Amino acid sequence: MLNVENIRQDFPMLQGKMMQQHPLIYLDNGATTLKPRAVIDAVVKYYEEYGANAHRGDYDLSYFVDQEYQQTREDVAAFLHAESEEIVYTSGATAGLNMVAYGIGERLLQEGDIVLSSEAEHASCVLPWMRVATKCHASLAYIPLQEDGRIDMDMLEQMMNERVKVIALAHIGNVLGYIAPMKEICALAHRYGAIVVVDAAQSAPHMPIDVKDMDCDFLAFSAHKMCGPTGVGILYGKKALLAQMEPMLLGGDSNARFDVCGNIQLKDAPYKFESGTQPIEGIFGLHAAIRYLQAIGMKEIHRYEQQLHAYAVARLKQMDNIILYNENNDTGIITFNVKGVFAQDAATFFNANGIAVRSGQHCAKLLNEVLQTSATIRASLYFYNTKEEIDRFLAVCANATMETCLDVFF
Amino acid sequence: MLNVENIRQDFPMLQGKMMQQHPLIYLDNGATTLKPRAVIDAVVKYYEEYGANAHRGDYDLSYFVDQEYQQTREDVAAFLHAESEEIVYTSGATAGLNMVAYGIGERLLQEGDIVLSSEAEHASCVLPWMRVATKCHASLAYIPLQEDGRIDMDMLEQMMNERVKVIALAHIGNVLGYIAPMKEICALAHRYGAIVVVDAAQSAPHMPIDVKDMDCDFLAFSAHKMCGPTGVGILYGKKALLAQMEPMLLGGDSNARFDVCGNIQLKDAPYKFESGTQPIEGIFGLHAAIRYLQAIGMKEIHRYEQQLHAYAVARLKQMDNIILYNENNDTGIITFNVKGVFAQDAATFFNANGIAVRSGQHCAKLLNEVLQTSATIRASLYFYNTKEEIDRFLAVCANATMETCLDVFF
Repeated sequence: MLNVENIRQDFPMLQGKMMQQHPLIYLDNGATTLKPRAVIDAVVKYYEEYGANAHRGDYDLSYFVDQEYQQTREDVAAFLHAESEEIVYTSGATAGLNMVAYGIGERLLQEGDIVLSSEAEHASCVLPWMRVATKCHASLAYIPLQEDGRIDMDMLEQMMNERVKVIALAHIGNVLGYIAPMKEICALAHRYGAIVVVDAAQSAPHMPIDVKDMDCDFLAFSAHKMCGPTGVGILYGKKALLAQMEPMLLGGDSNARFDVCGNIQLKDAPYKFESGTQPIEGIFGLHAAIRYLQAIGMKEIHRYEQQLHAYAVARLKQMDNIILYNENNDTGIITFNVKGVFAQDAATFFNANGIAVRSGQHCAKLLNEVLQTSATIRASLYFYNTKEEIDRFLAVCANATMETCLDVFF
Repeated sequence: MLNVENIRQDFPMLQGKMMQQHPLIYLDNGATTLKPRAVIDAVVKYYEEYGANAHRGDYDLSYFVDQEYQQTREDVAAFLHAESEEIVYTSGATAGLNMVAYGIGERLLQEGDIVLSSEAEHASCVLPWMRVATKCHASLAYIPLQEDGRIDMDMLEQMMNERVKVIALAHIGNVLGYIAPMKEICALAHRYGAIVVVDAAQSAPHMPIDVKDMDCDFLAFSAHKMCGPTGVGILYGKKALLAQMEPMLLGGDSNARFDVCGNIQLKDAPYKFESGTQPIEGIFGLHAAIRYLQAIGMKEIHRYEQQLHAYAVARLKQMDNIILYNENNDTGIITFNVKGVFAQDAATFFNANGIAVRSGQHCAKLLNEVLQTSATIRASLYFYNTKEEIDRFLAVCANATMETCLDVFF
């Protein structure tokens, strides 16, 4: 069991921070997470003690930065059970997912080919493939969802054929929070020669990831959703695929040479994808974040969030004023509405009570037709949330009605 | 005149930092710059007091982030004499330059069209255009350099015709440090209907920039070369051109809506270019950096660096063991070699004396043929460097010979 009270001591934002005269209860962890002292210190350490650029200098400070840069890559690889040359630094999950569609989409897709995704996907997972499919005269098809919003595996199996070249899906959906059976999906895809591109933005921060066991082809996530800095993320790709993939960015440090005749000799992966100065202090911070999470344990984090989620959902189900969209999900994402109240108005009511939740479409704009609502409220948990915070959140839920929610505005 | 001793108090890296048992003399400012306390504090403030994502929440913390995000955009616009909707957040200059080539290159270039650049350019300025020109069956031509390495304006004028659609050039070259006459180049380009894409990575940190007066079409730079964080940069683009330009990244927050039929309705610029979570603390830090630089004054910074440069060059010219490649340049970049010593070996000698300089091709791999050397040493100044540091640098230069440089290794 996690010692959450001890853990909370590590987070400056959890030391008596107030919002609207209430102690802050931060339940928007699906959007971004708070940072522990160790991560802040790692960023500041770069500024105060290193300061130099990586891969560029010929002096000790730069060499130290290079070393940290490489050690982080190795530790990220170990975190994912990958090899370090399969780890590409990116500016975030969105960049990583776009890099794959840009870099390999046109090589994989011919007229009549198919990319499979789902209507539950985040825009960053589905839009890059929508664009490249259109460009290649291929099509983007949507794996039907079961009534509760999970991927329908029987339907996926029926949809598979040799024209399917890519399956692009979230490991954990950012709205409904279901864990997709990725190992099974990858095995199925590979039987037909398709690759699987995994949006792990909501999974890598919350549960153990083993890319070798999953056997996915690409996997992308952001540091800032796992206690790290914004502006930095990771793209994992199988070596053979990274070797075929064209970089989206060209520029400094990613090429071995180029000439006036238009010949560009790129470096090998992962370096060919890392043009220009990388987010150095972000990489320092990501390193600290991964060490911090590993010290707690990804299995323990996952189990604790499931327990907290089950506790919350058991009570929310009993509330007549609450519509719950994902009561059986596997993670810490609770998606709901207050009956008769527009989601954004309800979110404002939560804010007035010191609780940070998110309302809207959560960048998954195709899902609303499935949910039959134009917007929802999402409360998303992390390992630093407590049962007491959930109790306070539940009390506010119980008290949320059209009258109380609109009262906030007057 | 700058009060450099006071300024240095603002930089933790300048408080007694040692390298190889010598006080650190940081002369690699063309690669990245040190950070003042105000920038570090702004980054830490985000982590400790805000923590939320921008544009995404429905609660006070997220709203505060949105406000800072927007205020920074306005202050960057003022810094460049632009409008705030012409300011796009990027992950750095390389990303900004690639975004332009990707987003507008294919619209501008037809078979037989011409992109002009020079052999003095950084890879990030020239390679994105090399790629898109090849793709469009257009050609990339190089404006000849004068003997000293400056753009030959007469030759540029002769090369101009209606097939030239794009001129991509650095405002200040990262190896030789000359200021290109951008206002004149833009006027010439526009007479023929070409656009001008300016790599301002080495100019925005060092001198006043007025994009309206210059009349450039695009201009890109990085925060980390101007006292700000890595992982964040700015792309300026004229409104009408940004409106035509396709985003390189698709994803969350940059679209207004999309549907299963493949229709994507993007937001207006600049938001359509800002998919996914932006480098939030980087933007906080960039804001602090710009305020810090403006408080000192960009004109004063430019003038001071020129003085310091003139002081150094006057003495370097008298040293028989030094080959100087750009004695008449306009900025704080000093490019040289020690006679008979490979640049990297000489850089190691400087390191052994506590001096951080860079050696190599500086990502401008076409320039070596012009300079007739495979590598150079670059010492690049910033406003926090002192005459005393230059004296120490000059003393090490005077002492640099094949014997002393190779001694370091034994």
